[in-house]
Amino acid sequence: MAQQKKFVEEITSMDVDFAKWYTDIVKKADLVDYSRVRGCMIIRPYGYAIWENIQKNLDAIFKATGHENVYMPMFIPESLLQKEKDHVEGFAPEVAWVTHGGMEKLTERLCVRPTSETLFCDHYKDVIHSYRDLPKKYNQWCSVVRWEKTTRPFLRSMEFLWQEGHTAHASAEEAQAETIQMLNVYASFCEDYLAIPVIKGQKTDKEKFAGAESTYTIESLMHNGIALQSGTSHNFGDGFAKAFEIQFTDKDNQLKYVHQTSWGMSTRIIGAIIMVHGDDNGLVLPPKIAPIQLAIIPIAQHKEGVLEKAQELLNRLKDTVRVKMDDSDKSPGFKFSEQEMRGIPLRIEIGPKDIENNQCVLARRDNGEKMVVSLDDLEEIVPKTLQDIQKSMLEKARAHRDARTFSATDMQTFAKQLEETPGFIKAMWCGDEACELEIKEKTGATSRCIPFEQEQIASTCICCGKKASKMVYWGKAY
Amino acid sequence: MAQQKKFVEEITSMDVDFAKWYTDIVKKADLVDYSRVRGCMIIRPYGYAIWENIQKNLDAIFKATGHENVYMPMFIPESLLQKEKDHVEGFAPEVAWVTHGGMEKLTERLCVRPTSETLFCDHYKDVIHSYRDLPKKYNQWCSVVRWEKTTRPFLRSMEFLWQEGHTAHASAEEAQAETIQMLNVYASFCEDYLAIPVIKGQKTDKEKFAGAESTYTIESLMHNGIALQSGTSHNFGDGFAKAFEIQFTDKDNQLKYVHQTSWGMSTRIIGAIIMVHGDDNGLVLPPKIAPIQLAIIPIAQHKEGVLEKAQELLNRLKDTVRVKMDDSDKSPGFKFSEQEMRGIPLRIEIGPKDIENNQCVLARRDNGEKMVVSLDDLEEIVPKTLQDIQKSMLEKARAHRDARTFSATDMQTFAKQLEETPGFIKAMWCGDEACELEIKEKTGATSRCIPFEQEQIASTCICCGKKASKMVYWGKAY
Repeated sequence: MAQQKKFVEEITSMDVDFAKWYTDIVKKADLVDYSRVRGCMIIRPYGYAIWENIQKNLDAIFKATGHENVYMPMFIPESLLQKEKDHVEGFAPEVAWVTHGGMEKLTERLCVRPTSETLFCDHYKDVIHSYRDLPKKYNQWCSVVRWEKTTRPFLRSMEFLWQEGHTAHASAEEAQAETIQMLNVYASFCEDYLAIPVIKGQKTDKEKFAGAESTYTIESLMHNGIALQSGTSHNFGDGFAKAFEIQFTDKDNQLKYVHQTSWGMSTRIIGAIIMVHGDDNGLVLPPKIAPIQLAIIPIAQHKEGVLEKAQELLNRLKDTVRVKMDDSDKSPGFKFSEQEMRGIPLRIEIGPKDIENNQCVLARRDNGEKMVVSLDDLEEIVPKTLQDIQKSMLEKARAHRDARTFSATDMQTFAKQLEETPGFIKAMWCGDEACELEIKEKTGATSRCIPFEQEQIASTCICCGKKASKMVYWGKAY
Repeated sequence: MAQQKKFVEEITSMDVDFAKWYTDIVKKADLVDYSRVRGCMIIRPYGYAIWENIQKNLDAIFKATGHENVYMPMFIPESLLQKEKDHVEGFAPEVAWVTHGGMEKLTERLCVRPTSETLFCDHYKDVIHSYRDLPKKYNQWCSVVRWEKTTRPFLRSMEFLWQEGHTAHASAEEAQAETIQMLNVYASFCEDYLAIPVIKGQKTDKEKFAGAESTYTIESLMHNGIALQSGTSHNFGDGFAKAFEIQFTDKDNQLKYVHQTSWGMSTRIIGAIIMVHGDDNGLVLPPKIAPIQLAIIPIAQHKEGVLEKAQELLNRLKDTVRVKMDDSDKSPGFKFSEQEMRGIPLRIEIGPKDIENNQCVLARRDNGEKMVVSLDDLEEIVPKTLQDIQKSMLEKARAHRDARTFSATDMQTFAKQLEETPGFIKAMWCGDEACELEIKEKTGATSRCIPFEQEQIASTCICCGKKASKMVYWGKAY
């Protein structure tokens, strides 16, 4: 019991200190360990298994929508990074520079990729000549480096894992369609696999990606009411194509510039999973991406027949769900806490009395519900319950998000709301960057997105009072 | 026809210039493109799809043998790299150094990982305390950087993709068993999936990994008789554990050092696939890892019913094999060359006459054989033929390897053999590094391995004439 208590005591309550609660979970659920390299994390087996499940499912969707994987070098020569003016301005201040190879000083510095637009452009220039070579729809899974001042596991680290899609198209329309398609892929993936509801919309000019014509985003809301940008899709128009001279001969025999897009989702999304679904007992994982979906925990396992029965259930279920049995010598209570801490969606408790009655206890991680079920029904009830959990988690997250989405028509209400109960604030905006900056200064909120689903909350900008055409989601953000 | 000729003419014959033949294939089969970063390659979709198939199969084997994937930072602080003396001496001369982050100079240089022993050790020190924490059997898929002077795609590049397994065990016996198990995994994988026969053995002290107690290797022989180290497995004993102070409390309550291993296979193996199986028409891929296993090529596709029938075959076969139909407006001859260049193991040719007779032509890439087969039998004959191809490719490679494996009992024969027809030379060795160096100086051959399967070719060292206990495979190597 002492051991069990210790396990649970070590987590700070989310209401007491949300940031501490987050880092406690990250460590206690064995997702991450800190490394000796400032701001770089070690992704441990359990954390990496979550990423593998995200990767596997997302990759299948990319392939089904006609994308191909490639691998580009991790280094970008300084002169290449500088080719697109806005892009280099955005990224140069936060890159790591390689200056020496072996014992020699390099004649040109290489940066470790913070993102790979410049490398893809340089390659596309080589391989695109005719309309027959289009579209090019490439993606790569890799790690990137951004020299951040303050870092937090998953949310903001110097190095993180991600995928970056880079496409080139014959027309502006096709590039725009791709940009929106991939935003929709991210949105559906978040809702269907991660049980995270998102707001789809466009970034303001101030918040868009360095070098992009337009940036689209999915924004999610964490349990504490702070927003998280969870995936972005950029339309570059022909800006990069002009900087890199990526031209093709079209069907009409004219030389034209390609139109490009890029889009990315990263290990940051694991931070969202933690902060959207987690509770004071630890992580809560959506069944679709949980490395272990079901934990079988024998009760009084020293008694005759208990371990055998638990093993029998494991064998029966192992082709249907991702299941583990915990037959270690820890107490059942300790095993329960551990299973809860690690966010395993479902638990079977089985002891001598249960066996006698041909039943077991099924405990849901998401809402703590316990059901006594017949052992005969497990093949049916376990997958069904996992589906239920997946569905309820999305509903619960959506209800919380909706309850923390507010409207404001004056700056005072806006600021007060964010101060008292942070969340999304819907407010009208004139489109002027000066107002965006003023709102940030006065409330701490940034524009999260101009949502596709517009509402007419008022007719004037909440900041300057001039005519407003756009409703914007605002919020404090990670 | 002009177009077709051009396609084929661009490949240098392997007998004329093997090195040029290799780079021609790498480019013409769309595996790789050169980047603007010296020595770094762009792995194109077709090349990357081969790597994905290798990765998928190897990863499944790793998991089936109890290994877990993790992700370590890509940077190693200089002081951490220096902790194990032999290791830093081996790697420091060939690493890339990050000296600046953003606008600031770092207080300590970071090297971009050339391999990650030091990072794993540092982490193991944190997470291993008791015998209950052992074994730790971790693996990671990532890219590494080694500052090479001369580079060639896949074979030797500044950056390459690989997996690196790192394990920690309670006893020396267990570490040794793991080392050999993983060598056997690599050997079986090469033979079963890549159709590449390998020699398993131990490296001499001169050739072993920097910091290892012993290094085991699988060695394969390329078509031109040059050897390629195709995968290695290292036993570190407790050397790293002592340098990094990785200790655990054993069952007997004694504090002990762990015993460690590491093992790796890289994109270099794609170079082996090219050079073991390729011919003057291009790449020849083993069916098990070919991204496309079957190409359906319609003949006279403008004629009524041809494309429809080809499409029907595609639909019938697409759940059985990885299949593509080429209905582009190129000539059939051009499509054949392209399919051959890309090493697609099997081709179906189907034209109006075939359709009339309810048949098609099945052409094998590995031996050029053509068979006329009934359309009714395709679901059965296509997978069977792919299995045959996989098997014949291994047999053919083994026959070639055996034909190019020679024995020598005197230095003159040794040198002459390597000069005239390079291959593996089996010769006795006394175990003295001086002889190893002299053999290299006189013949250009390095010791490839001390094979597990020993033969008593002579009783004395081929170099010094002293008593010899070991038979060694020698050869020129990439």
